[in-house]
Amino acid sequence: MVQRITIIGVGLIGGSIGLALMESEPSGTELVGFVRNPERGDKVLRSGAVHRVETDLLRAVHQANVVVLATPVTAVKEIMAQIGANLPSGCVVTDTASTKAKVMEWADTCLPPTVSFIGGHPMAGKELSGIEAAEPGLFRGCTYCLVPGRSAAQASIELMENLVRRIGAMPVFMAASEHDNLVAGISHLPFILSSALVTTTTRSPQWPRMSGLAATGYRDLTRLASQHPEMNRDICLTNVDNIIGWIDGFTEELNRFRRLITEGSPEEIRQAFIESRQARQRWLEDHDKRD
Amino acid sequence: MVQRITIIGVGLIGGSIGLALMESEPSGTELVGFVRNPERGDKVLRSGAVHRVETDLLRAVHQANVVVLATPVTAVKEIMAQIGANLPSGCVVTDTASTKAKVMEWADTCLPPTVSFIGGHPMAGKELSGIEAAEPGLFRGCTYCLVPGRSAAQASIELMENLVRRIGAMPVFMAASEHDNLVAGISHLPFILSSALVTTTTRSPQWPRMSGLAATGYRDLTRLASQHPEMNRDICLTNVDNIIGWIDGFTEELNRFRRLITEGSPEEIRQAFIESRQARQRWLEDHDKRD
Repeated sequence: MVQRITIIGVGLIGGSIGLALMESEPSGTELVGFVRNPERGDKVLRSGAVHRVETDLLRAVHQANVVVLATPVTAVKEIMAQIGANLPSGCVVTDTASTKAKVMEWADTCLPPTVSFIGGHPMAGKELSGIEAAEPGLFRGCTYCLVPGRSAAQASIELMENLVRRIGAMPVFMAASEHDNLVAGISHLPFILSSALVTTTTRSPQWPRMSGLAATGYRDLTRLASQHPEMNRDICLTNVDNIIGWIDGFTEELNRFRRLITEGSPEEIRQAFIESRQARQRWLEDHDKRD
Repeated sequence: MVQRITIIGVGLIGGSIGLALMESEPSGTELVGFVRNPERGDKVLRSGAVHRVETDLLRAVHQANVVVLATPVTAVKEIMAQIGANLPSGCVVTDTASTKAKVMEWADTCLPPTVSFIGGHPMAGKELSGIEAAEPGLFRGCTYCLVPGRSAAQASIELMENLVRRIGAMPVFMAASEHDNLVAGISHLPFILSSALVTTTTRSPQWPRMSGLAATGYRDLTRLASQHPEMNRDICLTNVDNIIGWIDGFTEELNRFRRLITEGSPEEIRQAFIESRQARQRWLEDHDKRD
């Protein structure tokens, strides 16, 4: 049985993991939360996401069976370096960052071979952040990518897989390079498109007149522009090549639509929109079937 | 008092106008619905959106004080030509199409100077269509663009303005050219981006693996790709120059993000996402204040 799980960074993701584990873990597992700012400690405790709060990193990971790094990705390397030598042998370490290649490299260099690192990425989130936005059902039905590190023990991989199932998510194993390319297409490209749509429209001299006409369509298309700027920056910095590849693919596709609109027949234009609509419909049906 | 309002095309928009008027019109106003396909007549009547259904166009507009053309835009010109000579003098004619310049031209050539044409465009909708999706609250709080035709009488303009308020929407007057440019930015560009995002991702050889990872962000960003292909085609065919202008502006902006990601400093990247987020936040605040 897992006796102690330490969550480093108890915000939206770390807090939601804690709340979900509280609902599903057999009693006897202690959840410890590391909070850098002591003033946040009370709020984290009151949220019910952990049993105990620590503001000292080494005390937080003391005798932990599992350590969840749920901080912004830019903090992950430093924390690994700080805790590496103090992790109990056999400890399972995981993270929740949106990109995986860099994190896997850092784990290789900063963590001892006596612990098992298994990178993680829950495909859930919302534009809000912080423990206030955490909820136990955040991961219910969502895909949870797992990327086992080079020296991860089979038993540790199975433990992670079980933890993921217990918070209601579906584990999917993949390599870091594959993960980073796939999420660049379905997650990073979309938030860049959202952000560029906002600036394209709001920088226009016509915006004061336009803004009153913008409605639910505009609201949906721009939602991802409200994600945390620091998270977006970190994703861009750690996944450059894949993101550029998808931006270029999208630009080509947008050009195809542009050509259709200027040169295509009405029937060709209609067919292009039918293709998009049907492809989305198929995805929705597969997606809803899984839930 | 308005004695008879005829709605030509009782689908999502026409049906919702009917339902909203039924809730707000003083009794004594008769709502007549024109339905091309007699088999749809019963369904339309049962929806409660109109008092009476007609399958003959000229009988439908007989003695109408107001005629609402809520058909697909491609049908508008032909219907105008068919009813033009039979409209009572002083009749107010309006439409609900997503683009206005072409419709205003058609009204100039097909309608007699004895009627007042006032183009209309409710900034509401959803990806569903048909009378089944109609609801009386569809226009509540939304902006409703009104474009008075050259020969529209002042009293008719005021009557339209009142009708719009009575269905819960806010009338905003503008010229057709301005309307078509503004909506190209906040409505047409977004559905083209949505559609291109769907094909960029679903045409990729990696799609089978990606599709399982796509979650709420992808769902929101692609929602407008589920709009009716015929409506999208008609919009593209009747608003080419404005749409191309906005596609080009967007492509430039996406290129700015691309350059930032390859060449920008972390702080420059962060600033770009902060700008988008804040601009959207300001829009949301203004928008919610209006509701």
